[in-house]
Amino acid sequence: MGAELTPHVTDILAHPTVAGLGTIRPDGTVQVNPMWYELVDGTIWFTHTNKRAKYRNLLHNPAMSLMVTYPGDPYRYVELRGSLTEARPDPTGAFYVRLAERYGDTDPQAPADAADRVILVMGIDKVIDG
Amino acid sequence: MGAELTPHVTDILAHPTVAGLGTIRPDGTVQVNPMWYELVDGTIWFTHTNKRAKYRNLLHNPAMSLMVTYPGDPYRYVELRGSLTEARPDPTGAFYVRLAERYGDTDPQAPADAADRVILVMGIDKVIDG
Repeated sequence: MGAELTPHVTDILAHPTVAGLGTIRPDGTVQVNPMWYELVDGTIWFTHTNKRAKYRNLLHNPAMSLMVTYPGDPYRYVELRGSLTEARPDPTGAFYVRLAERYGDTDPQAPADAADRVILVMGIDKVIDG
Repeated sequence: MGAELTPHVTDILAHPTVAGLGTIRPDGTVQVNPMWYELVDGTIWFTHTNKRAKYRNLLHNPAMSLMVTYPGDPYRYVELRGSLTEARPDPTGAFYVRLAERYGDTDPQAPADAADRVILVMGIDKVIDG
């Protein structure tokens, strides 16, 4: 089972903040990228493709860390530590469209690379509320 | 020698953006935290202490990755990949004060933990301009 999320943390995660996702590359170095995300049933979902470096990183080492700053206060943040539990095909890009709406796009279209889209599901092992 | 920084990247780094620093923990998992930084002579300087987890991470594995989003556009970013090249004692907290000024504090004071302060110097091996 994943970590318990307090109502406070759930509230922070509800905001459509661009978060920083850390992964580990096959050579053992670290990578950080901005990502859209959504909290779904106690896990974090991302839209990604099976052609990109982060996906290869996660097949090699499933460790993930997500930095979510407080809305309006970049000095406070929640860090979620966990790992990839599932890479779910999203061949119509439906979850991409859902995230685009969450992040303010009023008329999102399926992405050109929909056929390669996957939903990365991150299980949460630990929550650090900084 | 480190990576060459273009004028464009140097301009992005000149803004006092709170950046996301990725490091690797001794157990091989990844950690991401918001950090103040400054570009100094082609390296990135951070203020930190020798008592905290990130410092221990870096002694164990010097890999670092810094995500710096464009001012006003969180979807565009520069990722700097590199490693710790030096941890320089800062026992008066002078570099902490300098960074606090850079980030808008008009009357910064030396931190209470000045005696433990170190400057983490990150050498830049690769620049990804996303």
